[in-house]
Amino acid sequence: MVNQHRYCVIMCGGIGSRFWPYSRTDRPKQFIDFLGTGRSLLQMSYDRITSIVPPQNIVVVTNAMYAPLVKEQLPEVCDHNILLEPARRNTAPCIAWAAHHIAALDPEASMIVTPSDHLITREREFEASILKGFDFVENNDALLTLGIKPSRPETGYGYIQIGREVEPGILKVKTFTEKPNRELAEVFIETGEFFWNSGIFLWKASAIKQALAEHAADINNIFEQGNGIFGTDAETEFINANFPSCMGISIDFAVMEKAANVYVECVDFGWNDLGTWSALYDNSPRNKDGNVTQKCRVLAYNSHNNIFAVNSDKLVVVEGLQDYIIADAGDVLLICPKAEEQRIKLMVNDAKEKFGDTYL
Amino acid sequence: MVNQHRYCVIMCGGIGSRFWPYSRTDRPKQFIDFLGTGRSLLQMSYDRITSIVPPQNIVVVTNAMYAPLVKEQLPEVCDHNILLEPARRNTAPCIAWAAHHIAALDPEASMIVTPSDHLITREREFEASILKGFDFVENNDALLTLGIKPSRPETGYGYIQIGREVEPGILKVKTFTEKPNRELAEVFIETGEFFWNSGIFLWKASAIKQALAEHAADINNIFEQGNGIFGTDAETEFINANFPSCMGISIDFAVMEKAANVYVECVDFGWNDLGTWSALYDNSPRNKDGNVTQKCRVLAYNSHNNIFAVNSDKLVVVEGLQDYIIADAGDVLLICPKAEEQRIKLMVNDAKEKFGDTYL
Repeated sequence: MVNQHRYCVIMCGGIGSRFWPYSRTDRPKQFIDFLGTGRSLLQMSYDRITSIVPPQNIVVVTNAMYAPLVKEQLPEVCDHNILLEPARRNTAPCIAWAAHHIAALDPEASMIVTPSDHLITREREFEASILKGFDFVENNDALLTLGIKPSRPETGYGYIQIGREVEPGILKVKTFTEKPNRELAEVFIETGEFFWNSGIFLWKASAIKQALAEHAADINNIFEQGNGIFGTDAETEFINANFPSCMGISIDFAVMEKAANVYVECVDFGWNDLGTWSALYDNSPRNKDGNVTQKCRVLAYNSHNNIFAVNSDKLVVVEGLQDYIIADAGDVLLICPKAEEQRIKLMVNDAKEKFGDTYL
Repeated sequence: MVNQHRYCVIMCGGIGSRFWPYSRTDRPKQFIDFLGTGRSLLQMSYDRITSIVPPQNIVVVTNAMYAPLVKEQLPEVCDHNILLEPARRNTAPCIAWAAHHIAALDPEASMIVTPSDHLITREREFEASILKGFDFVENNDALLTLGIKPSRPETGYGYIQIGREVEPGILKVKTFTEKPNRELAEVFIETGEFFWNSGIFLWKASAIKQALAEHAADINNIFEQGNGIFGTDAETEFINANFPSCMGISIDFAVMEKAANVYVECVDFGWNDLGTWSALYDNSPRNKDGNVTQKCRVLAYNSHNNIFAVNSDKLVVVEGLQDYIIADAGDVLLICPKAEEQRIKLMVNDAKEKFGDTYL
């Protein structure tokens, strides 16, 4: 039987701009059936946690504008488990709110915090890893992050360097490392001491509150003013009035890189953050020409290793394209070599500068 | 004052499949504002003839399915001047009908027959050429075709070889030649004896009827059965019953290549048949990167000499594309190198085979 003190926080307020225009401000990546499974990434994130924590303990934190999408895609989640951020402030304020909210409901709560837009292919290993992580944080004063066993010298991820092992598979964190260059990433892999930073965390609500108080007092003080309000009808009004005052900062930067009680559980459950078109391409089924197709119909001639991401049953006909992203979202069409996808951010900025919010 | 016996037949029943998907079966090339002038190619064809023949003598022949488009774009043309073909049968049956129709209204009629999807840039020269052609066919037993002074060894056009001059600028036709290969086209240009076959004709209605009787009796006999019916309320019923029995054949093949009284007027009025994407590209204004844009908004990075043909105010963002056609028609997107555009016909066939008429 699942532990009634265990909670899950699914963060789904991001805008997924790296997948523009397939991912749009009004329907970001996590709300899309990115892998053609019939379930969006958010729904898949929800599904895989339901065997681990009681469904009524699953809390979704998102931007207020995505409330209708969340309710449409997760009708099982009741309204008071959907926390609506009135402004975008990165993960630290999001987690601070969720921790205060959950601690008010259950002072003994432990919680997993997870992004909603990642791919996890081996769900049984995932479940076992999370159960083990809950056991650890419930029995230790610990902030636990999941480190993914690296399979290649990926330069798109942050890395965690491990220290001494405190129990099998759980180690002290020595350092957090930003995205390395190729040479450094190769060294990381060779040493065996570095794991990918997954952005999935476990801790007791009380432990993360304590850590926020110590390392991110500016943010924590804002939520401390709401004591007695969390979990009541007044919470929304309090958040709308005070949440925007928080500075935008990630939980890694605000807390994890500073706290002394940070541990990493080394896991290997087929994880990919699907953070880039190339990652999506690598994790999608390909046809014999190496082309990946999202939903649309494609006639491809002399064209290989492309990804076609089109939100409709449009027919896409291509001749002579190799290694391109072809993404069509009705009012925006993007054609860009996969190798140049880091330039998409610039393109979004140019589109905004020239045409305002029309195409965001 | 314009001559009341002069008529114009504008043929606009083609489906423009070479410009698929920008040109679609339900809105072919001639109905599109291809050059961004605010007028479709059909409207431009109509406009340039209004100073030459009386407006009430302008007859439009099209496929029945395009009746609404013609009426929308040419509200000046009354219903009884719109001849609706119940089937596609190429130009010979189209012209045979128009000739019988006009001859019934006016036995002394002379007529120009013109496609509706060509570009003519020098309208004053066009007008002078047409007036001269009318004079010639009204005073001679002649079938006159307009030969365009070639400016390059174009392999996409048919050529007309000229014979002896019968009056300044008007010569006997020696031969009609199919599309030549590059080497032959270069020889054609060097000799000075060859002109592009424009598909624009002038003749008396009685002369083309006579020529059809001699050289295309199968077709002509069908229309001869309708004598007494053309120009009356019974014409539509007669045509719907009999037109489909005609074989599909071009007027060049059925008559012009066989008749003895065929002449060519050598003209030079900035003509282009806009028969290919490359021709459209060559005749459209380019930006500093050599990109041509039809209607849509484009953000182009490291991309040159492309043509963007999109029937909406969609934003098209491209990186690293050179010499491509990017054509979007809502439910179909085509991305094809300009150099491979002859393959579009094959693509249309494949689309038809796989998806029926959905995307035609």
